Amino acid sequence: MPSIAYFGPQGTFSEQAARAARPDDTLVPAVTVPEALAMVRDGRADLACVPVENSVEGAVSATMDALTEDEPLVAVAEVVLPVTFSLLVRPGMTMADVKSVASHPHALAQVQGWLAANIGHATQLASTSTAAAAVGVLDGNYDAAITAPVAVTHYKLDVLATGIADVADAVTRFLVLQRPGELPPPTGSDRTSIAVVAAYERTGVLAELLTELALRGINLSRIESRPLKGRLGEYRFYLDFDGHVAERRVGDALAALHRRCQDVRFLGSYPKVDGSATIAGAYNADEDYAAAERWVANVRDGRTR
Amino acid sequence: MPSIAYFGPQGTFSEQAARAARPDDTLVPAVTVPEALAMVRDGRADLACVPVENSVEGAVSATMDALTEDEPLVAVAEVVLPVTFSLLVRPGMTMADVKSVASHPHALAQVQGWLAANIGHATQLASTSTAAAAVGVLDGNYDAAITAPVAVTHYKLDVLATGIADVADAVTRFLVLQRPGELPPPTGSDRTSIAVVAAYERTGVLAELLTELALRGINLSRIESRPLKGRLGEYRFYLDFDGHVAERRVGDALAALHRRCQDVRFLGSYPKVDGSATIAGAYNADEDYAAAERWVANVRDGRTR
Amino acid sequence: MPSIAYFGPQGTFSEQAARAARPDDTLVPAVTVPEALAMVRDGRADLACVPVENSVEGAVSATMDALTEDEPLVAVAEVVLPVTFSLLVRPGMTMADVKSVASHPHALAQVQGWLAANIGHATQLASTSTAAAAVGVLDGNYDAAITAPVAVTHYKLDVLATGIADVADAVTRFLVLQRPGELPPPTGSDRTSIAVVAAYERTGVLAELLTELALRGINLSRIESRPLKGRLGEYRFYLDFDGHVAERRVGDALAALHRRCQDVRFLGSYPKVDGSATIAGAYNADEDYAAAERWVANVRDGRTR
Amino acid sequence: MPSIAYFGPQGTFSEQAARAARPDDTLVPAVTVPEALAMVRDGRADLACVPVENSVEGAVSATMDALTEDEPLVAVAEVVLPVTFSLLVRPGMTMADVKSVASHPHALAQVQGWLAANIGHATQLASTSTAAAAVGVLDGNYDAAITAPVAVTHYKLDVLATGIADVADAVTRFLVLQRPGELPPPTGSDRTSIAVVAAYERTGVLAELLTELALRGINLSRIESRPLKGRLGEYRFYLDFDGHVAERRVGDALAALHRRCQDVRFLGSYPKVDGSATIAGAYNADEDYAAAERWVANVRDGRTR
Repeated sequence: MPSIAYFGPQGTFSEQAARAARPDDTLVPAVTVPEALAMVRDGRADLACVPVENSVEGAVSATMDALTEDEPLVAVAEVVLPVTFSLLVRPGMTMADVKSVASHPHALAQVQGWLAANIGHATQLASTSTAAAAVGVLDGNYDAAITAPVAVTHYKLDVLATGIADVADAVTRFLVLQRPGELPPPTGSDRTSIAVVAAYERTGVLAELLTELALRGINLSRIESRPLKGRLGEYRFYLDFDGHVAERRVGDALAALHRRCQDVRFLGSYPKVDGSATIAGAYNADEDYAAAERWVANVRDGRTR
Repeated sequence: MPSIAYFGPQGTFSEQAARAARPDDTLVPAVTVPEALAMVRDGRADLACVPVENSVEGAVSATMDALTEDEPLVAVAEVVLPVTFSLLVRPGMTMADVKSVASHPHALAQVQGWLAANIGHATQLASTSTAAAAVGVLDGNYDAAITAPVAVTHYKLDVLATGIADVADAVTRFLVLQRPGELPPPTGSDRTSIAVVAAYERTGVLAELLTELALRGINLSRIESRPLKGRLGEYRFYLDFDGHVAERRVGDALAALHRRCQDVRFLGSYPKVDGSATIAGAYNADEDYAAAERWVANVRDGRTR
Repeated sequence: MPSIAYFGPQGTFSEQAARAARPDDTLVPAVTVPEALAMVRDGRADLACVPVENSVEGAVSATMDALTEDEPLVAVAEVVLPVTFSLLVRPGMTMADVKSVASHPHALAQVQGWLAANIGHATQLASTSTAAAAVGVLDGNYDAAITAPVAVTHYKLDVLATGIADVADAVTRFLVLQRPGELPPPTGSDRTSIAVVAAYERTGVLAELLTELALRGINLSRIESRPLKGRLGEYRFYLDFDGHVAERRVGDALAALHRRCQDVRFLGSYPKVDGSATIAGAYNADEDYAAAERWVANVRDGRTR
Repeated sequence: MPSIAYFGPQGTFSEQAARAARPDDTLVPAVTVPEALAMVRDGRADLACVPVENSVEGAVSATMDALTEDEPLVAVAEVVLPVTFSLLVRPGMTMADVKSVASHPHALAQVQGWLAANIGHATQLASTSTAAAAVGVLDGNYDAAITAPVAVTHYKLDVLATGIADVADAVTRFLVLQRPGELPPPTGSDRTSIAVVAAYERTGVLAELLTELALRGINLSRIESRPLKGRLGEYRFYLDFDGHVAERRVGDALAALHRRCQDVRFLGSYPKVDGSATIAGAYNADEDYAAAERWVANVRDGRTR
């Protein structure tokens, strides 16, 4: 049975995402995101599931950095989880009994409205993860924990409330990564992730990189920048965009970025979880690229068309 | 004496940044970044100092979100701190005595090399902040804490090592914010920060926004994206670029972005900490804008030049 | 009664255009396009009507150059004429009698199909204008002339055929120019003409100039380049685009071009002859510019919105 | 011996250019530019030499149109001639004897300053070409002709003045064309000419086409537009740029234009007459393209680098 490492401990949103992605795999918690990735790199796990966007555990920057250090890994799937929380207490406690409530600070920040409306009197305490808050309740350090819904499967606690969310429809996105190898086949609804460092520093360089995508009808779905270690004012950009590297317009755009960049790391082409079809845009279908290539070959052979 | 709120508790890098920015102000810790900003918004503090980039405390996403919610605040200064740590222990302990070491997970991640080389045998534990790790040492929960250098001024602990950093020259950047009012005057070495939500979703929209800056010779120094709450695939972009809104090319670029965006929030024009002069780029000096404006006015009056 | 100079002699397409534009004015032929413009510059005529596009008389390059030399003139109207010809002969002659036919070479080129089908046996001769061909018929130098339809009003010749055109719907475009002064008011269906010399020579400079228009939703309707006299590889670009300089997006674009160019000559904003409404494009209406300007002014005053 | 057709009659600048390009070939005059090209298309001549830029004979628009109609031809060389004229008279005549002077109107326009300074009293007459003016002098129709320097080799006339030019350094550019076949090999100093019709009409389309060149470091050296026959407001663009289609960045740019255009006609890659080396621009050398292509192939194979 394959194993999948996740940013633990047990009971976090990362575990919930790993279960959603690979329900039959063996789940293995890792103490940090870099550790989860290291487990895949050195063969201790087959896959890793790590948060990349809007994480309630605050690990996204760590993920970004860990993806571009050491040996490359590639994403083969994405998971999107609704960001809703449960309030866990020791068995038998009621809302009125809750004098203190703990969670990871990012999680607390996302339920301030609910807490004020429901247990405004309770002291708020920070824990190192949402799951650690549940452990703290078991240990008697405080009365209640704001956790991922999955946490209740690991800890003998009662669910006083669930589906807690100040903002409806907020989500966290995770990637499932493995060692490089055969890519998932194109499905017509794919996303590609890369990390790039521009080859030079000058005004407009990022505008140019993005224009390379735009001119090929490629829709950018996300951009992040992370400062290069030890180099103030220089950045690595993380780009997500629609399409699969097996498609010509995507391969053509990647080649253009490769020329302009001192470093391009391919982070995977994988099915989009929402299943929305990729729109290639006018004149950017594979057959348009094939026809253009044939024409140039003809011209070089002296045939002009 | 003015007061400055910071992302506490006492002894964090945020406190160190606040001291550096405003050595004579009263320092007031806040439990979260949003709380630090709320203190300025409702008048409990005059200023706030919060991390915006590469924070060892993992608070950057929270800062981004907090800056664009509720009432606007504007940055009046930036602070850049070297990311180096101290190892604190109870008085009298030596390196050989250290069996366990704690810190914020982001801080631990940045000293793995040093820990392996110097106290590889020690168990690593996570705390909610670097300062909380120091408190844990005082409380006897573990033997040592990896902290901001400033922490030792608050806790009766010994410094076993200082200047700890796996990567030389890594830094964290903070902004000093206040309620809107008179802007800091242009110095010739300024940075402007804004947050924008494009007016429409379509391929190439971010490339267009950045091209508006590039065409005016404005150097982008940083970009972040944060998903809009509850809207998958829609983003707010945070842009930092060289120049002051009082300069014509910057005002002209901001007006262009305002037209293309459903929301533009001005986050401040303030002196760059590195003092490097802004290069306006050919044809983008204030007098070029003034001359162009006069010419258009003349043309409209029927004078053609 | 105002006078209008045209590229003569009497009976050319330019005369026909001048009559169409200003039916009540005194028509004055000029021997060259530069001469027609000189007559306006020095007051010998109030207006000039000159071809700028696809002229059957081959004068377009001359017009381009003459518009940017000496004192500026501005266009106040455009005229578009269908390019159809008449076949004129001496009274009494029939098609079968025509052994030779003359016209300006550009005119001959445009009726080769008709001539082959109707008088393929006739020798073809070149004249210096279509009207000069009519004079040659009167003088007995050859049997027939291919002329502008208006020519028959000046010469005692018979029309053997009219509406001659190998290509249906071909047109020639003329501008009516005057000395700078009050501009024609915006009508919502206007065109603006300018001539620019970029401020520097480097890869991509024209792409940048055109991007300034495109980013403001301004539709380019024509571009020409003319080499700068005595400077190989340097060009003046002639641009026609939709909109009136009194509109904000057009004024804003012109100011941007002014900054990037060593020379911008305004050649007029005037009603389009086809009456098609200008589409400002999303976010480029006058009120969008006004709102953006107010916002920047507020930000500079410390109000942030 | 190969034959080369030129835009005649004998004694024009086109003949002079044809001689310069192919001194050993048989020269064959053609009555129009389209006729010169037709002679190559149907095998009556091996090559054609036609003016494409700033012609004193006014034939450039005709050349543009003729190049894109009928069967494709490709340029294999360019010729650049200085635009200086000779004043030819019947043997024995002196400057004082010249009461009338004739030439093609475009030629007359370029020597107005010299005529005013030297024979301001003479009547000016238009001829259908500069060579036709020489014939008219022989025939006694007028006293003097402004001609190409080469004209004197054909007509028994005296040269009263030569090197006449109001503007120093003005030039006319010609192309030498043949039927498609093997291309001239790249020399490191080449120019490529194409004619394109965009695939759609919308704001910014030309800016996008030119951006495709600019992003690949390709220097545009000339642009012309010609209205499509019978379609008001739609244009064919003629582009000249540095580089040879055998070079990867040029082939890559042509493929991009092919995708965006309903029609691209390749008009040749040939040595630049000035011998200036093509600068590929950073990251646009052939090896950059080859490296990028290999990397994309590796990524598709699951190797990530």
